[in-house]
Amino acid sequence: MTTELADVAPHLLQKERASATFDVQSCIDVIRGPRDVQARRKVLLDLIMKDPVLSDRKMIYRNHTQSYEKALEKSHAYVTFLKTNGITDPIEKELVYRSLGEPLPIDVHRSMFIPTLETQTDDEQRAMWLSKANAFEILGAYAQTELGHGSNVQGIETTAHYDPKTQEFILHSPTITSRKWWPGGLGKTANHCILVARLFLHGKDHGIQNFLVPIRDPKTHATLPGVTLGDIGPKIGFHAVDNGYCAVNHVRIPRRNMLMRFAKVEPDGSFVKPPSDKLVYFTMVKVRVLVVLLCGQYLGQAVTIGTRFSAARLQGTSGKGKPENQVLDYENQQLSLFPYIGLSYACYFTHQAIDQLYHHVVAQFDGEMDLEQLHMLAQLHASASGLKALLTEEVGNGMEAIRRACGGHGYSASSNLPYLFSVFIGACTFEGTKDVLVQQHAAFLLKCLRSPVPVTKKAGLDLLGFLRADAHSKCDATTPQQLREPQVLLQAFQVRALKLLLRADAAKPSLHHLTQASLAHAESIVLSCFYQGVMAVSDPKLQAVLLELWQLYGLWRIQANLGEFRLDDYLSSSQGAWSQDQLLELLRVVRPNAVALVDGFGFSDFELNSAIGRYDGDIYRALIERTTHEPLNDTDVTPGYHKWLKPLLTSKL
Amino acid sequence: MTTELADVAPHLLQKERASATFDVQSCIDVIRGPRDVQARRKVLLDLIMKDPVLSDRKMIYRNHTQSYEKALEKSHAYVTFLKTNGITDPIEKELVYRSLGEPLPIDVHRSMFIPTLETQTDDEQRAMWLSKANAFEILGAYAQTELGHGSNVQGIETTAHYDPKTQEFILHSPTITSRKWWPGGLGKTANHCILVARLFLHGKDHGIQNFLVPIRDPKTHATLPGVTLGDIGPKIGFHAVDNGYCAVNHVRIPRRNMLMRFAKVEPDGSFVKPPSDKLVYFTMVKVRVLVVLLCGQYLGQAVTIGTRFSAARLQGTSGKGKPENQVLDYENQQLSLFPYIGLSYACYFTHQAIDQLYHHVVAQFDGEMDLEQLHMLAQLHASASGLKALLTEEVGNGMEAIRRACGGHGYSASSNLPYLFSVFIGACTFEGTKDVLVQQHAAFLLKCLRSPVPVTKKAGLDLLGFLRADAHSKCDATTPQQLREPQVLLQAFQVRALKLLLRADAAKPSLHHLTQASLAHAESIVLSCFYQGVMAVSDPKLQAVLLELWQLYGLWRIQANLGEFRLDDYLSSSQGAWSQDQLLELLRVVRPNAVALVDGFGFSDFELNSAIGRYDGDIYRALIERTTHEPLNDTDVTPGYHKWLKPLLTSKL
Repeated sequence: MTTELADVAPHLLQKERASATFDVQSCIDVIRGPRDVQARRKVLLDLIMKDPVLSDRKMIYRNHTQSYEKALEKSHAYVTFLKTNGITDPIEKELVYRSLGEPLPIDVHRSMFIPTLETQTDDEQRAMWLSKANAFEILGAYAQTELGHGSNVQGIETTAHYDPKTQEFILHSPTITSRKWWPGGLGKTANHCILVARLFLHGKDHGIQNFLVPIRDPKTHATLPGVTLGDIGPKIGFHAVDNGYCAVNHVRIPRRNMLMRFAKVEPDGSFVKPPSDKLVYFTMVKVRVLVVLLCGQYLGQAVTIGTRFSAARLQGTSGKGKPENQVLDYENQQLSLFPYIGLSYACYFTHQAIDQLYHHVVAQFDGEMDLEQLHMLAQLHASASGLKALLTEEVGNGMEAIRRACGGHGYSASSNLPYLFSVFIGACTFEGTKDVLVQQHAAFLLKCLRSPVPVTKKAGLDLLGFLRADAHSKCDATTPQQLREPQVLLQAFQVRALKLLLRADAAKPSLHHLTQASLAHAESIVLSCFYQGVMAVSDPKLQAVLLELWQLYGLWRIQANLGEFRLDDYLSSSQGAWSQDQLLELLRVVRPNAVALVDGFGFSDFELNSAIGRYDGDIYRALIERTTHEPLNDTDVTPGYHKWLKPLLTSKL
Repeated sequence: MTTELADVAPHLLQKERASATFDVQSCIDVIRGPRDVQARRKVLLDLIMKDPVLSDRKMIYRNHTQSYEKALEKSHAYVTFLKTNGITDPIEKELVYRSLGEPLPIDVHRSMFIPTLETQTDDEQRAMWLSKANAFEILGAYAQTELGHGSNVQGIETTAHYDPKTQEFILHSPTITSRKWWPGGLGKTANHCILVARLFLHGKDHGIQNFLVPIRDPKTHATLPGVTLGDIGPKIGFHAVDNGYCAVNHVRIPRRNMLMRFAKVEPDGSFVKPPSDKLVYFTMVKVRVLVVLLCGQYLGQAVTIGTRFSAARLQGTSGKGKPENQVLDYENQQLSLFPYIGLSYACYFTHQAIDQLYHHVVAQFDGEMDLEQLHMLAQLHASASGLKALLTEEVGNGMEAIRRACGGHGYSASSNLPYLFSVFIGACTFEGTKDVLVQQHAAFLLKCLRSPVPVTKKAGLDLLGFLRADAHSKCDATTPQQLREPQVLLQAFQVRALKLLLRADAAKPSLHHLTQASLAHAESIVLSCFYQGVMAVSDPKLQAVLLELWQLYGLWRIQANLGEFRLDDYLSSSQGAWSQDQLLELLRVVRPNAVALVDGFGFSDFELNSAIGRYDGDIYRALIERTTHEPLNDTDVTPGYHKWLKPLLTSKL
């Protein structure tokens, strides 16, 4: 009789779940929030899965053009879905949108165009445009980045000259590189855009302002005169979005199409300066805090797939005649997965803490800020920048490491790991690349180092506590086990961050030193947010397991940056070696709960869309089923055979 | 007057080239070999660029199905091209094939099917099949990997039972997981395959053997009875290849279709054991040595694109009112690029050294081997495994790091960085994943540690020299500059490798410790091959620059693994800090030659296929030109507008 490995795989996952020492639902409650929210989420997901258009998960078979066309259908179906099911709550709308599995051409309309109208228009403008935008009567893009300038917004070349005679702005792209480049939806979808341009009044430069510009005919959708539009072509991900370009050739718009909540231009062309605009900070912080959540979600999905596959997969033996091992039992596989289970939880807990702090600061804001509030906002802004830089980088690397650990099945699109990576990895670039963010972050930390600020411990989170650490201390662990102790780990990360900041301060300005200081500080925030999150868990069995995972995460980061932790021998050579032993030991400790820990993220099979990451472990039948969707398999003999292959095979060349 | 940044970009690259301190052609000679070979390469490339089919570079617009169909046309054109231009030399054929920019459906036929027929058939079989295969009368796949087994070849489930009555083998896929899975060309293209199956004679297991199996009708190309074939669907790369699946249901083939150069089955079903087969080692070594070259070529292309872009791109200022900086002047950008220029050269030089050693061993082989020769082959095999594991991982990470360093323009397919990555990254998986290779490598090193072998320094390369290092020594650099000295750097890597091997030996068997030992040894080989390559350069100006690059590479690896180099305080804390200072210092030293160093790889614009990596630096016009190829731009108003977007915009939902 033959053993069917295909049948063994599901049993292996059942065995894993039976060996878990905690209740998975209790973990899902921690990550996903109250049960009624979870139930509602399930209802909505079920509705989406029943929708003939929105349930589509065949993204991997389409090129950019096909993806875009399909996504127009999905955009239509999404709006219809909201109406049909009476969904008006912004959180529920967001939930439905995120569940579609790919960003749509209306992505930037939702996430940037409408919010900009909400925050940057005066009351009259708001009344004029916002309801139209919400009803999709005007569909917008946010056109800031140019071919020549991304990170350096001050370098933007597009001009807006005011003509007092006609009370119009004349918008112009004076150079090749001033062409707007990248904005989502700008190429083919949007009929308006918010154009970011440099304002000139009577020839005088008044800096960067926002203008609402019609770009396509509302009746025919044809590009308007003076405007050049198109799609910039394929990218790593976002295949369904028409990231576009736009050039304007002396295009005139009415004076009141400048967004005037803050700066204003009077009819005679005189300029009214904006009051200092703290709201810009709020928006940037909000987006970066959201990215931290996305980090948890994408890495969580990837490591769910990788861990389940590794548990269901048998490969290789420990000696001749012995049964095959679960791949999850190999130490290297554990090292490729468990730290990333840890990092996923770290992202979730960090998001919870930072989001709470953000709302705390927002709640206090009533248009004015005292110095302490202002400093709190600045701390939050700087830290969120550093966190975004650190976590997008680490999560991107992690998703790829997990994919490689799944071998050939990870290289196949059926695993969905390549697709998840392609969608996520844009986060390393958009909303500030790492190099720009770490500089902002480190510059702020240096300022705090040089002129210390009063301790402000708001919402349970002390972002600058590391400044009070002792830079001359040494790690006082006298046994390997002591390296797991929370105070030992937390202190090690704080001292490291302080040491690197001091070095960045002492040295000639070195971007690399600033970068190390930023990343070290961000990592110490992550470690303490993760720890506080674990401490707040009420279920003791779950808490115990998460604490082990936290220790594993901390020791892994020490290993990955051992040179920094050994600076001035803060860790001795022996302590460094102990930290590795403890990390390897913790792999074995976490092993029995690995599958339960990824189950604890609560992703559905529909969301994961992975043949090898299925909850039930029936991975081999799923892989075979997937091949029926490949268009090449619609015929036995491929259409190209007669034209190209037959002449080759019959030597008719 | 407006400054056209688009015109500044080319000037910046000219400026870079003017500041180089060495002759680029002299560098190309080192990498590409004799001038006549270079000239012939140029002739062939020019011919390909003129070919209406083979000059195609629009891979990024196609999905898997479209890529495959196009690739059949290219396969036809490739064979026609060889005939038309009278190209018969295997090296030239390979050169043409590699210049096509994507693997074709005939890839495995060329690289695995024919070579297997060459090495594994007896003379009669060879006469029967090889010329047919060379003439494409039979088109083959190499079907080893199964759905359930990849790395563990001994776990293969497909069976071949011999029937002495009819003198046939009965081939069968007894389980779901025994289905062949992954072989290139197996899905739609091949009409034969070499099927790897477990041989049973009179019910007795005789292990894994190779069988030549017809799978498609030679006249109609229809799948033959008893065979199930198909494509496994999209992957990260290799879109143009029909990686396939194959199940066989009691398919009968003649006895003589087993490949019988080594093992044989007599008509009565008796088994003739193979003599110990050293050729298998040769094949594996050959492929892994080739992968080292591919590492240099792919990383070289990526870093050429990244470096030229960073030189041509201006972004940000060092203070208000100051002109914008070249991105290449930022320290972080240099850290994302220069070490990978170094690693690319390291791969080229390592390939040259290992390839030379391989040919040295092959030349000595006359069917028999003495113990020393055998040990040399084993050394080569183990080292090539470790090098493949190390370099594919590092190069994959490097390509992605370079891409991220190019910001949005790196995320766009127009840079070609995503495409290059997608083609290369399969190398981390095929021909042995990292975890399997490092184990083989480390196991061999442990054996050598336990029973030392006589020094065999062949072809100038002492692969096991690190075993004679002093594990108890400390780095004796007393000034920061001394850390750059060749003997100091080379010794540091050897001591580290030995220390890690000793730890792997002392500890309970830990896969992680074995991995560290393998990678450290491989890295010390790379460092010394790179060094020897530089020492052999005859042009003193070029040699001086390459030596700086070598120092930069070495110090970068120390920084990346500082914890390992500080084990037992081999490097003190001060020396660790010095190594970072020296690395940053070397960035400034290498900076003026950065563009010349990537020019020195000698890639043509056609090969790079990158809008932002052009030799002439005219990147912005090239990016705009690229958008004309995007099918979405064929019409102003997208076809989906009328059906999906209009109802949305006119509130007709």
